[in-house]
Amino acid sequence: MPAGDVIEQPDRPWNRGLLRRTNERLLLDRLRALGTASRAQLARETGLSKPTVSTALASLAAAGLVHEVGTLTPERGRTAVLYAPDPAAGYVLGVDIGRTWLRVAVVDLDGAVAARADVRNRARTSTALAGLVVDTARRVIADAALDPAAVVHGVVGTPGVYDPARRRVRYAAHLPGWGRAGIVDRLGEELGMPLEVHNDANLAALGEYTYGAGAGSRLLAYLLIGTGLGMGVVAEGRLCTGAHGLAGEIGFLPWPGGPKPERLEDAVSGVAVVAAARRFGMSGRLTAKAVFDAARLGVPAAVRAVELEAERVAYTVAAAAAVLDPDLIVLGGGVGQGVDLLLGPVREHLRALTPLRPRIAPSRLGEDAVLLGAVATALDTARDLVFEHRTAGT
Amino acid sequence: MPAGDVIEQPDRPWNRGLLRRTNERLLLDRLRALGTASRAQLARETGLSKPTVSTALASLAAAGLVHEVGTLTPERGRTAVLYAPDPAAGYVLGVDIGRTWLRVAVVDLDGAVAARADVRNRARTSTALAGLVVDTARRVIADAALDPAAVVHGVVGTPGVYDPARRRVRYAAHLPGWGRAGIVDRLGEELGMPLEVHNDANLAALGEYTYGAGAGSRLLAYLLIGTGLGMGVVAEGRLCTGAHGLAGEIGFLPWPGGPKPERLEDAVSGVAVVAAARRFGMSGRLTAKAVFDAARLGVPAAVRAVELEAERVAYTVAAAAAVLDPDLIVLGGGVGQGVDLLLGPVREHLRALTPLRPRIAPSRLGEDAVLLGAVATALDTARDLVFEHRTAGT
Repeated sequence: MPAGDVIEQPDRPWNRGLLRRTNERLLLDRLRALGTASRAQLARETGLSKPTVSTALASLAAAGLVHEVGTLTPERGRTAVLYAPDPAAGYVLGVDIGRTWLRVAVVDLDGAVAARADVRNRARTSTALAGLVVDTARRVIADAALDPAAVVHGVVGTPGVYDPARRRVRYAAHLPGWGRAGIVDRLGEELGMPLEVHNDANLAALGEYTYGAGAGSRLLAYLLIGTGLGMGVVAEGRLCTGAHGLAGEIGFLPWPGGPKPERLEDAVSGVAVVAAARRFGMSGRLTAKAVFDAARLGVPAAVRAVELEAERVAYTVAAAAAVLDPDLIVLGGGVGQGVDLLLGPVREHLRALTPLRPRIAPSRLGEDAVLLGAVATALDTARDLVFEHRTAGT
Repeated sequence: MPAGDVIEQPDRPWNRGLLRRTNERLLLDRLRALGTASRAQLARETGLSKPTVSTALASLAAAGLVHEVGTLTPERGRTAVLYAPDPAAGYVLGVDIGRTWLRVAVVDLDGAVAARADVRNRARTSTALAGLVVDTARRVIADAALDPAAVVHGVVGTPGVYDPARRRVRYAAHLPGWGRAGIVDRLGEELGMPLEVHNDANLAALGEYTYGAGAGSRLLAYLLIGTGLGMGVVAEGRLCTGAHGLAGEIGFLPWPGGPKPERLEDAVSGVAVVAAARRFGMSGRLTAKAVFDAARLGVPAAVRAVELEAERVAYTVAAAAAVLDPDLIVLGGGVGQGVDLLLGPVREHLRALTPLRPRIAPSRLGEDAVLLGAVATALDTARDLVFEHRTAGT
């Protein structure tokens, strides 16, 4: 039966309530997809009768989920009221905990940023880092002039993998102490909202899929090459997390190219770019960005370091392609800042390495990919939560 | 609403037919899960009324989908007739095309083998191979004393990947000419049944998941190490095939351990085991099996070849683990014949290579994994086909 065709069972009052809420949810989702719509448009789009649409819209408006945003006066016919979902019905918190930056945003149900802060992560202990996250989140909520209770859900991106059984983050070697049990619980308690924790590369992959380079991809692999190396995989719009949440921990891939087996992460991360540049003769306080900048100016040691990095990124892409068969590989993270230098040589090396030809694209969201993935994930949950909460008992 | 609770719309004759078939299908599936059951048991299990169950069973029996298999006489109460799905309602063909062996089985809807043949693949051309497949399949159907029309669906496993757009198999380097367009169409036409073609490692993974070592696994990776190297991935009971059907083509992984980059397949397949044994001093007409046999007898060159193979299998396992996070990796294919020698050293190398610890198990189905995966896949389709066909127009 068509999507909007709801079976009527008028003799059962309990079902009548359920039916009404089902219609209201259907209407709200359609309205969110359309942006704004009139009563007549919604009736056409959902297959519901106009009186049913009117009743549902009135009920959604009373619950604070929908509001009037103007009128439409066609050349012929009557002026119609235009409705839209009320973006202020609820807010979400997105957090990206990186080794150098902490990024926090509060976003309304339409996905519009109400306030945001990017602060240096100078925390040396997990307690200091947890404190910084809580303080920054509170400040951002205050900057948005929001009652903290209006923020209904939060998603935190972090290196490593959250183990829900032990309530701790594992494999986050670059954040000292961050693997201690109870830290995530403490964040949620102090912020007074339910918090989910996800791997940063996974969120970045979802971010690119939802808002960036990955729209419409059947199987997207996002390579996060920064302080470490991670990968997030989105198949048919859903994250692939593996049997224990560790899928995409491609940094653990053995790298047999060196004198002794090391991990691919140590060969391909931003740290490796700096190490290679030093080996080839650069000195001073180097960062991966500085090496890329120098390579653009033709500094020979930097050019050689970038050449080596391209070989290793190509190897990483070839490994992901052989195992997963993605139609798109997005290059992101700090090393993504050199993507203009890397993309050509990576594609060239790839031709020698493998017969597989996945499309390779630079990240479109850049440093915001993890934060936007956190926001997208939080919005998915929050839209359900807000609807359930505001229509409960009606 | 509970699974068995079907909405009644008695005023629409079209819906009444649909409802009856829905109930019949529900009943047949439940009966297949139970094996045998009485009318009363089925009523309890499905939530349908006893008269509905009786009518549906009569209709299923008339369609040849269900038959009486005996009676149950309880200590108290009436004797009840026991019903079961009729396994002879339809048959499927499973085919495993390997470089050295061609295996063909005809199986009834219960999955019981009606006839089977394993013949040497000595075909040197794709035409000869197609002829061998057709002749063997016809012989097996005749051996089972079946009308060819009773075989409703076939699934063929082959190295490489079937490209449905170009109607040809790609990447099957070990079967000369097998990539020609039209070969699969010809097989289906000559056999007079719909044929699906799948990658051999994918079918083996499904075989182990359905009948073998992988039961209950959340994410199973099956490594097929034989003439070539392939991998099949089953997540939550479903094959992961990637964006173009190439997921698991781990043989394409670059292998940077040698003097020049080669493919992992060339480093880890049975051919590599033989080449290593020769390099270490063995001679004669060697096979991977002969090298494993010699290693069991303590022949030093063979022992060294097996040691090297264990390192490379460990690398392969580590790569699959890092990208996919499986809870189980099954080792199969010809090299699986040395699994008693390999398993210990592979686990040891793995500890040095990666912090990830997937469970590694030998294939339980051995050389039958691809064939049984083909059968399992064909049965899934055939159960639908047979039901649709036998209840059509009722």
